[in-house]
Amino acid sequence: MATGNINVSVENIFPLIKKFLYSDHEIFLRELISNATDATLKLKHLTSIGEVGVAYGNPVIEIKVDKEGKKLHIIDQGIGMSSDEIEKYINEVAFSGAEEFLEKYKDSAKDSGIIGHFGLGFYSAFMVAEKVEIISKSYNEDTPAAHWTCDGSPQFTLEAHDKTARGTEIILHIAEDSTEFLEDSRINELLVKYNKFMPIPIKFGTKEETLPLPEDAAEDAKPETVTIDNIINNPTPAWTKQPADLEDEDYKKFYRELYPAQFEEPLFNIHLNVDYPFNLTGILYFPKLGNDMNMQKDRIQLYQNQVYVTDNVEGIVPEFLTMLKGVIDSPDIPLNVSRSYLQADGNVKKIASYITRKVADKLSSLFKSNREDFEAKWNDIKIVIEYGMLSEDKFFEKSEKFTLYPSVDGTYYTYAELHEKIKDVQTDKDGKTIILYASNKDQQHSYIEAAKEKGYEVLLLDSPIVPHLIQKLESSKENISFARVDTDHIDNIIKKDEEAISKLSDEEKESLKTTLTEVVPAEKYTVQLEAMDSSASPFMITQPEFMRRMKEMQQSGGGGMFGNFPEMYNLIVNTNHELVGQILNTKTKKKQERLIKQSLDLARLSQNLLTGEELTQFIKRSYEMIK
Amino acid sequence: MATGNINVSVENIFPLIKKFLYSDHEIFLRELISNATDATLKLKHLTSIGEVGVAYGNPVIEIKVDKEGKKLHIIDQGIGMSSDEIEKYINEVAFSGAEEFLEKYKDSAKDSGIIGHFGLGFYSAFMVAEKVEIISKSYNEDTPAAHWTCDGSPQFTLEAHDKTARGTEIILHIAEDSTEFLEDSRINELLVKYNKFMPIPIKFGTKEETLPLPEDAAEDAKPETVTIDNIINNPTPAWTKQPADLEDEDYKKFYRELYPAQFEEPLFNIHLNVDYPFNLTGILYFPKLGNDMNMQKDRIQLYQNQVYVTDNVEGIVPEFLTMLKGVIDSPDIPLNVSRSYLQADGNVKKIASYITRKVADKLSSLFKSNREDFEAKWNDIKIVIEYGMLSEDKFFEKSEKFTLYPSVDGTYYTYAELHEKIKDVQTDKDGKTIILYASNKDQQHSYIEAAKEKGYEVLLLDSPIVPHLIQKLESSKENISFARVDTDHIDNIIKKDEEAISKLSDEEKESLKTTLTEVVPAEKYTVQLEAMDSSASPFMITQPEFMRRMKEMQQSGGGGMFGNFPEMYNLIVNTNHELVGQILNTKTKKKQERLIKQSLDLARLSQNLLTGEELTQFIKRSYEMIK
Repeated sequence: MATGNINVSVENIFPLIKKFLYSDHEIFLRELISNATDATLKLKHLTSIGEVGVAYGNPVIEIKVDKEGKKLHIIDQGIGMSSDEIEKYINEVAFSGAEEFLEKYKDSAKDSGIIGHFGLGFYSAFMVAEKVEIISKSYNEDTPAAHWTCDGSPQFTLEAHDKTARGTEIILHIAEDSTEFLEDSRINELLVKYNKFMPIPIKFGTKEETLPLPEDAAEDAKPETVTIDNIINNPTPAWTKQPADLEDEDYKKFYRELYPAQFEEPLFNIHLNVDYPFNLTGILYFPKLGNDMNMQKDRIQLYQNQVYVTDNVEGIVPEFLTMLKGVIDSPDIPLNVSRSYLQADGNVKKIASYITRKVADKLSSLFKSNREDFEAKWNDIKIVIEYGMLSEDKFFEKSEKFTLYPSVDGTYYTYAELHEKIKDVQTDKDGKTIILYASNKDQQHSYIEAAKEKGYEVLLLDSPIVPHLIQKLESSKENISFARVDTDHIDNIIKKDEEAISKLSDEEKESLKTTLTEVVPAEKYTVQLEAMDSSASPFMITQPEFMRRMKEMQQSGGGGMFGNFPEMYNLIVNTNHELVGQILNTKTKKKQERLIKQSLDLARLSQNLLTGEELTQFIKRSYEMIK
Repeated sequence: MATGNINVSVENIFPLIKKFLYSDHEIFLRELISNATDATLKLKHLTSIGEVGVAYGNPVIEIKVDKEGKKLHIIDQGIGMSSDEIEKYINEVAFSGAEEFLEKYKDSAKDSGIIGHFGLGFYSAFMVAEKVEIISKSYNEDTPAAHWTCDGSPQFTLEAHDKTARGTEIILHIAEDSTEFLEDSRINELLVKYNKFMPIPIKFGTKEETLPLPEDAAEDAKPETVTIDNIINNPTPAWTKQPADLEDEDYKKFYRELYPAQFEEPLFNIHLNVDYPFNLTGILYFPKLGNDMNMQKDRIQLYQNQVYVTDNVEGIVPEFLTMLKGVIDSPDIPLNVSRSYLQADGNVKKIASYITRKVADKLSSLFKSNREDFEAKWNDIKIVIEYGMLSEDKFFEKSEKFTLYPSVDGTYYTYAELHEKIKDVQTDKDGKTIILYASNKDQQHSYIEAAKEKGYEVLLLDSPIVPHLIQKLESSKENISFARVDTDHIDNIIKKDEEAISKLSDEEKESLKTTLTEVVPAEKYTVQLEAMDSSASPFMITQPEFMRRMKEMQQSGGGGMFGNFPEMYNLIVNTNHELVGQILNTKTKKKQERLIKQSLDLARLSQNLLTGEELTQFIKRSYEMIK
């Protein structure tokens, strides 16, 4: 048996690192600025613990594009490197100086925010550059500056340099296939995407600023403009601060920073802040969502130590909360792993359930502290809450406290309040309490009116997942059932022990039914005679709850085979209405038929079922009639 | 000045390769099966050129899960390795045996389909395994088998083994955090996702198959079942064959292979096949799309040498064709680069324009060879074509030949045919030809009828991007303009040099207008008196073309500030209609008002503008009237 060491030869691996280190080449700038930030934070840490005698000052990181020279410069004023340190940190690929620093200063530097991990980031420069230079001057004044050059082969040169200012300058000689990175606009785009909230100020060019006129300025004085550094980042974004130090206006301001193109203000925010058993900070915002479930995802941004990572938080944030906006910053989320692994990871599970709990708690407290305001916001947040109720059982339990059920008249009930309010009036003869709802106040207007005349409460439930939600509520609550107001004649929806008295005899009913079925198309409408109030509609079209709900559920996923059934309606004819008596007693067949057709058309109108040619004919007939 | 070599130490890089080689850990199986495939294809090549004396036979690659032993086996019957070759190919990370083989046999092996490139794939095993074994026996019979073991440290052992069968077996001892890969269902999922069309048969377990009974079987004979290998892949998928060797049924069969959950058949397919200036094969399918532009993307699968890569072809296939389905196989598409680089890459640009041209040519030839069939399919393919016309100028030019404009009566015109047909009748007094269209036959029924009575042709243009498309057509054709039928009274849409004769005097008109504006709400309707045919509608509601189109464009993106304007309509009153004369001459204010209101309601009905409370009241009033 032989043993030996696996060999990674630099000639083989170097071209691969250059080409495939990251799947997205643009990442190089984020990596180099992360290194520059670490170099600055290291100096800050050393000065703060008094290890070095130099002043920390107000260091910035500067990015410069030299389009003509085809060069990109990244310049920091950080700790700098001697030529020995370059040998150690740069010439050894994948030897991480950051890890070494954290190891050395492990007690004091734990919260210094240093980013680097693997010592590979620097080499991402070769994904876009054909040659890279490093010019570095250590904070240690006695150490001379060094100049490292490498043309992308594994060979480098190292020599002395006359740089006197502390810090490191990286010069990328941009390759032919990457000239996009010599465009100011492209660099600005990258800076805004990845570095907008990094902890050290980043300078990219300059800008003009108009100074305010002094109070005693002459009337014809012109305001003075000065040229100042253009700093692209906010080094202390709101999520890095303590909630106690932030006002409502600060949260709104940060929202505008995050989403400059967004005009609408968020409804409220949730500040996340935990260090055990995992480290996570962040701010989530509830935007105005309405009923649109699409187009809203991937708006939460994920950061690690203030460096932007991705806006795809699938697997980290529970599905129903991906409709929110905001930021999450955590060094504890494993990134380069498969989504299925992510979902099985214990830490990630804990993070997801922590976020869910915080959201539920916040909703609870908003509801308690200002119910009126919460009700005003309900329509814009309900889709998230309803989706959460459907998908997360823990959230479903907690939601009982703050989920609202609005009536068509704008009263908002909790489930308990609603049940208390309706249980006496809306319980049928079998002891089941029927919760009435409408999905559209306009389209179901006449049915809503009929229910209200009975003294019933009608909810307005209009989000697209309502069919799924009421299915879940019916199976988790006892002795209740939901019914849409147009599912049947109201006395059939909530059946009481009252005998309905019909003006018509059984023979008359028989004759009426025969007459009606001769005119009404049987493949679309099932005729159903009902002895209703004489003031109720003579004709009424309804659709059975179960079938309609299945069809709706299929539209938003689920619902199975029923969704494909043809549309079938019931035509309810009120035997106590004067017009119906008239139809029965009309002697000429032709006149009878005309009465039935016009009545059926009116019933179809109120269900939005009369269209096209038939509607045109109806309107023509009606103009004739009013002449 | 010092020079030196950058050093990649195995202790530093090995842990990184293990963890971060690929962003998705599941890729390991694809990589190992690619290696097994290469080992088999190498043997095939050597036997085919007579370099070795052994028979190629019918080699398979076998995958075995040993859940109890926590092991996963990948076994091939390929070329095998001696212990020297293991030293060379395995112990040198990133030394690619495939590259070396292709270099050595460069003339004969060019089309052998060998996959490997970088010699890194094998090490992806360590992303999921804590220990990996290789047991390999070379095709060279005199060479003894070798057994390599590595526990994830850079140290390995290598010893002799008694394996006698040719080929290589890889044994992964699956790590604690990756036990998902010990589930049959998970492995099956990966095989189906990545390896379904790889060129060597892949066996995963066995399955039962019922043999057909012989013709002379006894009546009570039971069919025999046998256990056979479960081969998960189709080694010769349709796109690897020549179009001449494929029937229509073969393309449909392959579609069902690609999308087993899809019930609907594709409408037609486009076989792609080019080797210069780039290498690309594939089959694209037009599915039935209807008017739904969403939910349809990312259904084209990208392969490289029959290995699945991704179903995100953004940047490679022109945007408008991402609604199609099918496969593209090309070794020439750079993968690990940024999307912006991809879009700028010359090869990729050529690929995109090749695909666009092939699609346009196919549509052209389908139109020419069987116009009837093409017309029947139009509604299911138009969204792709219309989107292509909008987004690709080259496609717009070519589309002239096959783009169809259907009338509401189901006649399909090319643009030239349409123009020829309408130019005499539908040209207005200023010489502009007006193309009339409807977006919904039902909702605009009465307006369509009015246009047809004039002998005009009305198109049915109902896809969501139509407002953008007609905007483009208007700016690229001369002296034409589109107008929706309900944009005005038809005589105003196409103005001729005819003087309309009004039954009313100017004083009567003045008086009528005053009466009307007292009743009709001015914030919604602008009253407009027109001397129309006495048989035309008395009241009619229209919406100006420009405003409506801007609003529609905003809904599908674009349209600017106009989209936010409130809904405004014109109420056109036909001064020649009997009812209007009646309104003017009614003496009691109350009766006059009732007539106007009922007429306005009927006009609103035909534009679907009467809803809710107002509709309920209208219906109640109407029941009263017919009693």
